Amino acid sequence: MTIKIYGVPISTCTARATACLYEKGVDFELVPVNFFGGEHKQPAFLSKNPFGQIPALEDGDLTLFESRAITAYVAEKFKETGTDLIRHNNLKEAALVKVWIQVESQSFDPAITPIVLEYVLAPIKGKTADQAVIDANLVKLEKVLDVYESRLSSTKYLAGDFYSLADLHHYPYTHYFMTTPWASLVNDRPHVKAWWEDISSRPSYKKMAEAITSG
Amino acid sequence: MTIKIYGVPISTCTARATACLYEKGVDFELVPVNFFGGEHKQPAFLSKNPFGQIPALEDGDLTLFESRAITAYVAEKFKETGTDLIRHNNLKEAALVKVWIQVESQSFDPAITPIVLEYVLAPIKGKTADQAVIDANLVKLEKVLDVYESRLSSTKYLAGDFYSLADLHHYPYTHYFMTTPWASLVNDRPHVKAWWEDISSRPSYKKMAEAITSG
Ligand SMILES: N[C@@H](CCC(=O)N[C@@H](CS)C(=O)NCC(=O)O)C(=O)O
Ligand SMILES: N[C@@H](CCC(=O)N[C@@H](CS)C(=O)NCC(=O)O)C(=O)O
Repeated sequence: MTIKIYGVPISTCTARATACLYEKGVDFELVPVNFFGGEHKQPAFLSKNPFGQIPALEDGDLTLFESRAITAYVAEKFKETGTDLIRHNNLKEAALVKVWIQVESQSFDPAITPIVLEYVLAPIKGKTADQAVIDANLVKLEKVLDVYESRLSSTKYLAGDFYSLADLHHYPYTHYFMTTPWASLVNDRPHVKAWWEDISSRPSYKKMAEAITSG
Repeated sequence: MTIKIYGVPISTCTARATACLYEKGVDFELVPVNFFGGEHKQPAFLSKNPFGQIPALEDGDLTLFESRAITAYVAEKFKETGTDLIRHNNLKEAALVKVWIQVESQSFDPAITPIVLEYVLAPIKGKTADQAVIDANLVKLEKVLDVYESRLSSTKYLAGDFYSLADLHHYPYTHYFMTTPWASLVNDRPHVKAWWEDISSRPSYKKMAEAITSG
């Protein structure tokens, strides 16, 4: 039974889920959702995710939503194959993966998301980007990246000297962010820059980026 | 080696961590942080959590932060004792726990937190609560609780017919929220109300609530 991901390749949250499947080398089928036609707010999709948001995953009779729950499920189910994204044999390393997964979700994501939404999505919707929103969140993002710079000066990746789900979760929004005029926030911090160059050169990132571009 | 939690009992995020330790029946020492004196922004605490936020955990030479990473670590380390909060023997149930943990963190928390901060914290700081912020977030919270009402009409708890970390993560903010004039948002939804009465009658909740009151 092939895993199905309901979503669209250009969606950041869909991309987070598919990047994890690429990283684990797990085959899946991307079932396109007519996002701009509002299919995700129709009953058929709402039965998969009552919040009406992409992505959703189907694996046999199991239906999941929330991109970070999907990645954690995939990392757990396939823990013995491919990259060990959750350090399941080491309680301490696994705990640090959990910490930095939370940091991405609680601190990094709330700052970077509004910037990407305003800069990338507003124009697509025919709106002007709200520069005040961007500016306020650039300040927040800088503070987060200062912590990353310090952290990454002592460990190669966020959770330690090993690549993990915590790093992977940063792929989609940073991918879009690096196309904005504020990419220097990453590039001006040497350890953040080296980390980003490292993780964005992984095959899983490249496959995700290619799917976004052609999607 | 006793686990140490750095924080203050009245802090919601500290309470999330300690509630999990109560639920697992794991002894711990609460090391008070002089929060109103800004101790969490001083170097000693920043070495535990570079974001300068409580709580932090110390377990031997392991230091963690982020309340939901702390609870997940405790639930994993002590998975064979007390309530199984992560359904570690059942991949599908474990996946659903992950989904509803994400829902709390991605949808419930961003709506309820500003309401509690404005209503409870603003007066403590000598400020007037911003009613516009409260109103906007009440609308968001209602939508989340509508999904919960529907979900809880088919399962006893959020992730299924078993209590889990997903339910426990709701303790602290809902505890404060139920003291506001908008507790009816919970009480007017029969399944949400029954769920809240159930989980708030657990010993772990009562211990947390007592610590908040006397803290
Ligand atoms: N926390 C969710 C967020 C999902 C999300 O916001 N998806 C967007 C597309 S990237 C969406 O479906 N937006 C439509 C909406 O929110 O109505 C996750 O990580 O999966
Ligand atoms: N996402 C963090 C949030 C921690 C947090 O916001 N803690 C508050 C107290 S409840 C704090 O330390 N605030 C001080 C600050 O943010 O500067 C967690 O869940 O642990």
